[in-house]
Parts: sequence; C-alpha cells; structure tokens
Amino acid sequence: MEFLLLYTRQTQVCAVTNDNEDVQLSLVQLDNYGPWTVTPSPRRETDLQSLQAHLYADFADFVGREDGYAFFDRFDNIIGVTNGIDRRTHERFQEHVRNRYPVTASIGIGAAPTPVAALGRATEQLQDAGSAQDPNRTEILAADGTVAPGEGEVTIAHFDIVDVTGTYTDSEHAARTTLDVRRATLELAEYMQTEHDSIARFVGGDNIIAVCPHLSEDCFDEARDAVRERADIELQVGVGRGLTAHDAGYRAKLALEECRENGHRVHQITTQVATD
Amino acid sequence: MEFLLLYTRQTQVCAVTNDNEDVQLSLVQLDNYGPWTVTPSPRRETDLQSLQAHLYADFADFVGREDGYAFFDRFDNIIGVTNGIDRRTHERFQEHVRNRYPVTASIGIGAAPTPVAALGRATEQLQDAGSAQDPNRTEILAADGTVAPGEGEVTIAHFDIVDVTGTYTDSEHAARTTLDVRRATLELAEYMQTEHDSIARFVGGDNIIAVCPHLSEDCFDEARDAVRERADIELQVGVGRGLTAHDAGYRAKLALEECRENGHRVHQITTQVATD
Amino acid sequence: MEFLLLYTRQTQVCAVTNDNEDVQLSLVQLDNYGPWTVTPSPRRETDLQSLQAHLYADFADFVGREDGYAFFDRFDNIIGVTNGIDRRTHERFQEHVRNRYPVTASIGIGAAPTPVAALGRATEQLQDAGSAQDPNRTEILAADGTVAPGEGEVTIAHFDIVDVTGTYTDSEHAARTTLDVRRATLELAEYMQTEHDSIARFVGGDNIIAVCPHLSEDCFDEARDAVRERADIELQVGVGRGLTAHDAGYRAKLALEECRENGHRVHQITTQVATD
Amino acid sequence: MEFLLLYTRQTQVCAVTNDNEDVQLSLVQLDNYGPWTVTPSPRRETDLQSLQAHLYADFADFVGREDGYAFFDRFDNIIGVTNGIDRRTHERFQEHVRNRYPVTASIGIGAAPTPVAALGRATEQLQDAGSAQDPNRTEILAADGTVAPGEGEVTIAHFDIVDVTGTYTDSEHAARTTLDVRRATLELAEYMQTEHDSIARFVGGDNIIAVCPHLSEDCFDEARDAVRERADIELQVGVGRGLTAHDAGYRAKLALEECRENGHRVHQITTQVATD
Repeated sequence: MEFLLLYTRQTQVCAVTNDNEDVQLSLVQLDNYGPWTVTPSPRRETDLQSLQAHLYADFADFVGREDGYAFFDRFDNIIGVTNGIDRRTHERFQEHVRNRYPVTASIGIGAAPTPVAALGRATEQLQDAGSAQDPNRTEILAADGTVAPGEGEVTIAHFDIVDVTGTYTDSEHAARTTLDVRRATLELAEYMQTEHDSIARFVGGDNIIAVCPHLSEDCFDEARDAVRERADIELQVGVGRGLTAHDAGYRAKLALEECRENGHRVHQITTQVATD
Repeated sequence: MEFLLLYTRQTQVCAVTNDNEDVQLSLVQLDNYGPWTVTPSPRRETDLQSLQAHLYADFADFVGREDGYAFFDRFDNIIGVTNGIDRRTHERFQEHVRNRYPVTASIGIGAAPTPVAALGRATEQLQDAGSAQDPNRTEILAADGTVAPGEGEVTIAHFDIVDVTGTYTDSEHAARTTLDVRRATLELAEYMQTEHDSIARFVGGDNIIAVCPHLSEDCFDEARDAVRERADIELQVGVGRGLTAHDAGYRAKLALEECRENGHRVHQITTQVATD
Repeated sequence: MEFLLLYTRQTQVCAVTNDNEDVQLSLVQLDNYGPWTVTPSPRRETDLQSLQAHLYADFADFVGREDGYAFFDRFDNIIGVTNGIDRRTHERFQEHVRNRYPVTASIGIGAAPTPVAALGRATEQLQDAGSAQDPNRTEILAADGTVAPGEGEVTIAHFDIVDVTGTYTDSEHAARTTLDVRRATLELAEYMQTEHDSIARFVGGDNIIAVCPHLSEDCFDEARDAVRERADIELQVGVGRGLTAHDAGYRAKLALEECRENGHRVHQITTQVATD
Repeated sequence: MEFLLLYTRQTQVCAVTNDNEDVQLSLVQLDNYGPWTVTPSPRRETDLQSLQAHLYADFADFVGREDGYAFFDRFDNIIGVTNGIDRRTHERFQEHVRNRYPVTASIGIGAAPTPVAALGRATEQLQDAGSAQDPNRTEILAADGTVAPGEGEVTIAHFDIVDVTGTYTDSEHAARTTLDVRRATLELAEYMQTEHDSIARFVGGDNIIAVCPHLSEDCFDEARDAVRERADIELQVGVGRGLTAHDAGYRAKLALEECRENGHRVHQITTQVATD
C-alpha cells in the first residue's frame, strides 16, 4: 500500500490510498431512445416520465438485490455501482427490459481503480459497439472484466445539506430550494470528478451520494469547502467502505446520522474488513 | 392585453404578454420523509430510489391522465403543472399514495400569473400548515383556488442540446456528458427563474422543459445566449401554448422536431385558441 | 318500475327490479398477445407474470381514478365496470399501454341493463373488429354508446368466506384453501351469471365481487345457498348500490363489515339516491 | 430409482419416478392484511387490486431473477417455486416489501419430494408461527431447509386449451370463456393435487402451469382425460424437467409449441441432466 500526499492546508491532509483495488460501474443505455420518443409523433411527456422512472426503479431493484447502487443519471443513461454483480445478472436485466418495455437496453461494464476510470471503460465499450442512435446497435452487453465479490472495496460518501428542512424546505420558495440543492450537487460532482476521479449524483431530497476511491476524511472536508466557496451551501457527509456499494453506503448512512446527532461535518465508519 | 417591453439587443425584442391568465402548479411533499428513511435504521438506498421513482411515475400518470405535466424535482418534493385538474383529483392521488406506499403526501396548489408565483403560493400554503418534518402535518391539501379547464393558457418550452448524440453520447465520457447537461440545465433554470418567473427542469436525456408566462420567441433566444455564455452549450428550443401543459407541450415537441429537421434554434407553434 | 317475481322458497322472495337502467362494462383485450409471448422464442414466464400484473394494475388505477372497478379476469382479457367513464379515458389507457409496454390493447365498451348483456356487447364489438390474434387488429376502441355519470345505477355484492382465517388460513394446507376458495368462486360465478346475468370474480384473499342488476337481499341468500350446496362453503355478503362501482362497492364493503361484526350473512346498504 | 406403477388403462401407463429429489416451494403471506384493508375504513378496491398486483409482480421479478416461478394464488398468499433460491434472497424480498409497501410479508419455505408436501411444510411453519391475523406475527421467515441449486430437479407442465382463440375468444361471450377456462383450471388443479401431489395454477389467458413430481407422459394424458370428462374441455400440454422452474418451464413451453404445430396433445422435452 502506498500513500499519495496531495496537499496540506494547515494540519489537514487529504490522502488517497492507492490500494490497487478495482471498482465496477455499469452504464445502461436505452437503444435508439431519442428517435423512439418522437416516432411516429411525439409521445406524451408524462408517459415518457413514467416509463423512465419505472425502468430506473427496476434497475435499482436489480442491482439492489445484489447490494449494488443505482443513479438515475440522465434516465436514458443509468449508472450502477455493481461490484460483484456478474454478466449473467446484467443479461437478465436486458431480458427483463425487452419483455416488459417498448424499448431495449445496452450495457457497458467497466472495472478500474477509480469510479471515473471504470465508467470511462464502460462508456468506451458502448461507443465502440456503435452509436446510441444506430438502430442496429441493440442489446449490446460489453464487459471487459468484472469485479468478483470479495475482491475490490468501494467507498461511498453520503452528503446532505446541514439543516435543510429549517433553512430551506420550511422557509424558502420550493423553486429556490431546488436550484440551490442542484447547484450544490453540481459543484460537488464537478469537484469530486475532477479532483478525485469520483462520481457524485443527486439521489433525492437534499442527498448526494458519491462513489470514490479510498480517500481520507480530510479529502471530504476539502470537498465541503469547495461547495461552500462555489455555491455557498454547507454540506455534511458520512463515509463508509465495504465490499459492496450497499455495505459501504449503509456505513455512510450511519456515519451521516452521527453527523446529524453530534454536529460533526464529516464522519467515517471504517470497515471491519482489512484493506491491506 | 398589454405588452411589457423588457429590453432590446440589436433588433431582438423579448416581449412578455401580460394577459392576466393564471397558471396552476402543484407541489407534492412527502410527509416527514427524511426521518422515515432512517427509522429504525437507514433503509436500503436502492429501495428508496425505487420507492421515489414509482411514486413519481404514479404522479406523472395521475396528472398526465388530465393533460398535466410532472417534474421529479427533488423526488420528496414533486412539481405538477396542473391547469384544469381539480381538488378531487389531487385528493385521489393522496388516497392512492396512502393505500399503495409506506409514506403519505401533502399537496399545495397555487394559481398565479407566472409559474414561479404559482409555485410560491403552493409552497407558502404547505409551509403555513406546518413543517415538512412535523409528524402531525399529514396529508394536507392546501389549495387557495384552482384554474378550471379553459381559463388560463400555459406556455411550454422544450429545450435540448444541438446534436447531443454526436457531440456527447457517442464521443464523450458519460460522466462528462452528464455534468455538462446538468450545468446547461442549471444555468437555464436559473436564467428562466430569475428573468422570466419560469420553472425549467431536466426531464431525461438532454431534454429540459420550461413552463413559462406568455413570452415571445426572442426571449427564448436570449435564454439560449445565456446558457451558451455561462455553460458553453448550444441549446435549441420548441415552444407551444395551450390550455393544458400537454397541449402546449405537444406543440413544443412538434416545434422542436422542426428545429431538428430545419436547423432552426427557436421555433414556436402558436395555438389555435385565441388568447384575448 | 316493474317487479319480476322469480320464485319463492318459504317466505323468501328474490326480486329483480327492472328499472331500465344501464350498466357499462369494458373488455380490454391485449392484441395478438399469445403469439407475442412465444416470439421469437418462449419468453420467461415470470416476466410475463410481471407484465400482466403491471398492466392490470395500471388499468385498475385508470378506472379507479374515476370510481370504476376492475377484474383481472384472464389478464390478457381484463374487465372494467366503467359507468360514467368516457371514450377519451379509454383512449388514454390505450395510449398509456402503447407508450409503456411492448404490447398494445383493444377495448370494447358495452352498455346494457345487465352486466352480462353489457359485457356481451363489448365482446361482440371486439369480435366484429377481427380476431384477437389478427396482427392487423390493433388498438381497436369499439364503443356503441356509453353510460354517462348520473344515469345508471350499479349494484355491487362483496362476498367472503365466513371465518376464513380460523377455518382455512391458520389450519388448512394452503393448497387446499386455495382450491376451496376457487371452487366457491366458480360456483358463485356460474350461479350469478346463469341466474342473474351478473359477473362475479375473485379479487384476492377470500373475496369475490359481483356486479349485478338490481336484486333484492333474498337473491343473495339464494346464491349463498347454491354455493353451500355445490361447494360446501359458507359465504357472507355485503351489498351496495350507487352511481359508480366505487360508490356501490364502498357501501357493499361497509355492509360486509356489518356482517362480520353482527353475524349477519347478507346485509345491504341502500343508497341515498332514489332509483325511480 | 424405483418405479411406482399407478394403474393402467388400455396400453397407457402412468409412471411416477420416486427419485428422492426435493422440490422447494415458498409461501408468501401478507401480515394481517384483511384487517388492514378495512382500517380505519374500507380502502378503495382498485387501490387494493393495484397493490396486490404490484406486490405479486415484484415477487415474480424476485424469484424470476434466480430462475424460479411464481403463482399469484390468492394474492394475499403467493406461491413461489424456488429451487436454489436461498434464505437471504427471501429476506431481501421481505425488506423490499417493508420499504416499498404499506404492508409486510411473512414467508414459509418448504422442501419435500412433492410440491404439495413442500407447500405443506411451508404452510405448517407459518401456521406454527402464529395466525395470519395476529398483529404480532410480522415478517416471519420460516425455513426448515432449502434446496440448493443443482440438487433437486423439478417438472413443469404447461397446459393450454386446444384452439382457444378460434373456439372461445373470437366466438364466445367473454364471460362464458372465462368461466370455462376457470373450470378447466379448477378440475385440473384438483386432479393434479389429489392424484399426483402437484400444484397447478392459472397463469393468464388459457394457460395453466403445474409443478409436479417426476411423472411419465401418460400421467398427463390421464389428466387431460379427467378435465375432458369433468369440464368438457380439451387441453394440450408441454412438459419439461430441469434444475430450476425456469429451465423446466422453458422446455415445457417449447414442448407446448411442438403440440401447437404438430397436433400432439402431450409432448415432453427431456432434460440433458441425468436423473439417476
């Protein structure tokens, strides 16, 4: 195990542990979806919203069944954190979509030391198979190697806004609250993607979940600083590690509860599983 | 009918028609949802994702049935454009949630000349009824007057990114594409909210839908300029008006198809219904 | 109004009120569904079960929204009691199916003085439009006249088995319980269809719901006798009348609660709405 | 391996192979569901139909994911054929129900040489844990041993009615067709349960699926005879065997296709896996 010292500020040190463990991400892409939504004429928007939400919920159920995580992302592109979920399960999801929906789905699966690299591999494999709007590119499953259960650990950071109900929901215009939550999400996602090769996404309410490499607590404090500076919003964050997104994320949720109760701004629950 | 001249830039004129017609927006708020998600211990994230997506899909189906529109917004707060949808239908949705989900929902309904003002009224009425995390504030339906069918017209603007498949989906890293779409969405939403009292939200893929007052085509061109300047992304937009969000939105979709085919950047399909 | 005296047994008199009021039933038929399930090869049975159940649930939501009732019937043929639900709502359901499912649906709507006659008209209209397995017969909506709200009253009878939990669920083999419930359902459905032109269907648990013409309480007592004789099962029944299936059915449920509490075997809650 | 000669009629011989292999069935029972449906007042019937159908679809998806089969049975009691599906997956389903529905579910799992015996064990274990309407009996998971993948083979027989579209759907009253299909189902289910310790259930359209011990083709011919005699309906049947319900059922579907094409009335596709 080696430590990469990124930089110090006062006494804080954001340390990235390069433990050579891979994380696995999946990119579900609806086949030729854009053209379908307007053929033969534009389809009713609320039916499309219903279709997309159901399909996303089904994917969340699929990966959740095996302790993965899901992000709705752009709905026609859905992201899964799928450590330990094999090729066959992804095929079953494709079969399920084909049998239950008027559209089909292609999937790229990538494994790499960081979430962004893993999603990059998933993306490239799909792109190599043809355009998302090529009618002949249908139900591709492109997987260049998968992370078996027990191999790689994953870090989940679960952020929310300090006292969102008092500060926003119960006092601000709903439209203002939403844009502020969105800006906090976007600035956090940009920061985590650029600085730490991490994927952060909005998951409802004022919650943002990031899947990350092995970072120290100080890295998350610096991410909070970045969001405060760019969006003037105060986040708190619980962090957990585990062999699956659910294991890591459950610890992150417990850690965030700790923040809510004790006023901490960053809390990490270390895993029982040794990482070196 | 009176015209408010906002400002001119070169030969463009963004004109807002103040036709004293109201638009109706609904704000669905899950009751005491945050605490529920961690009681007695944090619930599995994918189950929450599935719950939120299904509940949103059901709301989209509900308002879509009567030609409304729905935005997932923050999932625990969902927005509906509900011109002509009465109190009883909203009550039926609350009954449906109570009978089908482990949570309940409160709803505020507001009618006003602009979408932001309408959503503001919806918000205030909910806030007046108690905190979103007050366990005793349950299944409130706060409606200070509703827009009957045939009364107010609504404007829908349907934006997307010019050549998103070629420029992004088929060539960029999926994580990059998503953040760029999100930034375009956020800057557009901020601009439309601040400048035109409009609500713009992401609806999947590269699509952003705005519900607006009665604006001229030039206003949308200026909105495109704003997004190009702030986020360096080129949008195109179809605009429609009608007595319901679906009628207006369907025309907006047709107009956007016109943009895609003919290279226009703004296209408006005027309604057959007289507005004065 | 005229009374038809059917027969007497001891002091009981089963009276049918011929009030010339129509009831409306809808028959939803999936287009060319059988062939689809095995094309290009047999589809996974659980996916078909999931598809059928979701589509039925959506139909139940659709008609329930306007106070109708739904029976799953054979899943590829679904029955609705749709008094007051117009052609446009049925079209919206067809649009919803087209946009959300890999199959499409045709619908026949029939109005007649009895449920069997109404369903017969719905059936004939679909049959006249072509075979259910004709690939060219798609999304037919065949409606020869619909019952507007406020015109015809409907009678709902809600049956269940006396003490099913004690007698069956908690003491019998689950397979035995199911077959006994099924036999009670079938004998009741045959009796009600043959004797009273009524449609009775299983709706879950030990509940059977019948949509009927205007029958007196004694008719239901005789139906209970018939089931006791043919299947050796003791039913109780609540009966209600109303302008919609939901209004009638809600009263029937209240009446059945009355049976459960007070040991009655037939209880009817008369409607406040005058019927002559 | 031993053969039990049941009886002969002309030259037919129905042989049951007693191969001492277990089949696993699961009984999902909603906790205290009946009282919930009328508390505090009777809930809207279509909402209950929607709830039951969604919950059943979710169970079908759950077991289908691991190649099991599901029968809706009585909706508040749902049956799964769950060879190779372990305790943890059943727990995940219970967690899913708790997080997504306003009700909870208990499950009994039984393994035995015949389906009826397996379901009997599942039933007994639930009954031993308390009444289905005991408010304190919640989320029981009672499993006395489970069938691991690769251990026991299962036989699936997939029946349907010969030329149902021509004979019924396109020519008969829909109400008549349904009752005839129901009678065929009931008589088949009674026969298979009594004679062969098998569970047969309606799965939509004119399809009936039976999970059976290892029976010879002649047994199915005799079952067809029984239904013809009791209900005057002509069935055909495809039979398959495999390590999971899906494997067996897929072969049964292929075999039934063979019947449809070649006019056979019973066709069996034998598994590649040796059974002795």
